[in-house]
Amino acid sequence: MLYQKVLNGDKRSLARLMRFVDDRIDGYEKEMKEILPKCGKAHFIGITGSPGAGKSTLTNEIIKHYRNLGKKVGVVAIDPTSPFSEGAILGDRIRMAEHSQDEGVFIRSVATRGHLGGLSSSAIEIAMILDAAGYDVIIIETVGVGQDEVEISTVSDTCIVVTVPGLGDDIQAIKAGILEIADIFVVNKADKDEAHRTARDLEMMLELSQKKDWTPPIVKTVATRGEGVAELVEKIESHRIKFNSKHSERLFFIAKQYLIEKIEKNIFSYEKIIAKLNLNGDPYSLVEEMFNSLTNGINIRD
Amino acid sequence: MLYQKVLNGDKRSLARLMRFVDDRIDGYEKEMKEILPKCGKAHFIGITGSPGAGKSTLTNEIIKHYRNLGKKVGVVAIDPTSPFSEGAILGDRIRMAEHSQDEGVFIRSVATRGHLGGLSSSAIEIAMILDAAGYDVIIIETVGVGQDEVEISTVSDTCIVVTVPGLGDDIQAIKAGILEIADIFVVNKADKDEAHRTARDLEMMLELSQKKDWTPPIVKTVATRGEGVAELVEKIESHRIKFNSKHSERLFFIAKQYLIEKIEKNIFSYEKIIAKLNLNGDPYSLVEEMFNSLTNGINIRD
Repeated sequence: MLYQKVLNGDKRSLARLMRFVDDRIDGYEKEMKEILPKCGKAHFIGITGSPGAGKSTLTNEIIKHYRNLGKKVGVVAIDPTSPFSEGAILGDRIRMAEHSQDEGVFIRSVATRGHLGGLSSSAIEIAMILDAAGYDVIIIETVGVGQDEVEISTVSDTCIVVTVPGLGDDIQAIKAGILEIADIFVVNKADKDEAHRTARDLEMMLELSQKKDWTPPIVKTVATRGEGVAELVEKIESHRIKFNSKHSERLFFIAKQYLIEKIEKNIFSYEKIIAKLNLNGDPYSLVEEMFNSLTNGINIRD
Repeated sequence: MLYQKVLNGDKRSLARLMRFVDDRIDGYEKEMKEILPKCGKAHFIGITGSPGAGKSTLTNEIIKHYRNLGKKVGVVAIDPTSPFSEGAILGDRIRMAEHSQDEGVFIRSVATRGHLGGLSSSAIEIAMILDAAGYDVIIIETVGVGQDEVEISTVSDTCIVVTVPGLGDDIQAIKAGILEIADIFVVNKADKDEAHRTARDLEMMLELSQKKDWTPPIVKTVATRGEGVAELVEKIESHRIKFNSKHSERLFFIAKQYLIEKIEKNIFSYEKIIAKLNLNGDPYSLVEEMFNSLTNGINIRD
């Protein structure tokens, strides 16, 4: 078992356990059962936004700030376009190298995604391992398109949506969905001409929407020069103080994904299903049947 | 029941049935059970790529080409950044208006996504309705980030990945994952200087990869001027002739999503799960237990 060494702060065991979990090596659940009770202290920050919005540069600056405050920082990069992530070409990663010698920083990229789409369970499990290992702040970076950004907001204590001026119609279209998920908006590359307009547009959209217990602040940053990052961290801390940890939601997310993994692995055999579908062509009756035999006589909601 | 009118080509019933399916109105499965046996004749084209790659303009041009060939064309836009889609602001849609008077074109946007991420089942069901209603070509447009593009390739007969020159590192990072899913590559905005380099980069990546039965052609287009679209349609047709329809895969996709919807709705009660997790904090044992009682004594793989 690796968990003891992980809890004692051994970085090599930490990396090994993460690989275990990501690859679903037999017995990883046993390790996680020891890890999860040690979780709940870290603050989880989700960072999402379009490719090219500067999320990674911003993450870099947030790391620096928290390090200056003496906090340990873990990063999980799920964003396939992030230089933190496996998908990236070598050159990109050089920018991130400045933290590689820092004992108080741990960066892990997660290339895999949930088999059924959305955030993979292992991404959140890996973030939980960092929590148990004593990292104070855990940043989860994901690209802001589709379901990911909704999920990131359900498992993050504070969710930051990064936008940039001048992305035009595309970002406008995305905006509609992000008002509900953002705890803080960042307008990055704020030295661009249109930055003021972008911030004002966001403000107007926020005024039209109804969010009672918290109005998401809009922070302008120039991440490449570190500008505005102190203010951003201040807003993160204000938000952190005001709300409870979403530890239970993270456990729920893991449970749900784990059930789906089990069903995919044990019930939903591709070949058999296809054979049946080729016979009668009716997926609804087939699933109805499977579901009824699955739940036959058992009150599964209790 | 609406299906009879839909099969007879009534557009209002078509739109109504799609809304039924998308909203999961009680009884929609009954309609779909009548619809699905009439499917299997249409050619499903998936179009994916980064926001801003010009997917919608290209889709527009593909519609025109197929219309000139006398084919009826249906479009399902799942891309949240597409001007076809609900999320888009009004101004964008005007560009698409040119087909709104054409009896042989039906465009439907799907704002909702799968509850667990990825393509929603209703998006594919809506595409199937178009198939049953006699549309010859069905275009499914989705944004090319994350799981969507993998799923679109499993349910499309021909999957087109659209890229543009000069997106830089971001697109490079995405590329790694798209080699396996693309049947055809489009380098759009090919009048840009870097277009030649982008096409050459793609070619090199394709040469390094191992795809035996089909080498994805790379087609350069300038969608705003309709350039290259004739060649693209030609490549689509070459691909169509060579491969079997993925009708069974689409039925499988619907079955899988339907089972997950049923489980989410009937088993996975958020409040009860959270209450249990708050007691013992162990999602793995909880799911193990649920799964065992679910599958108790039933050989569910047969």
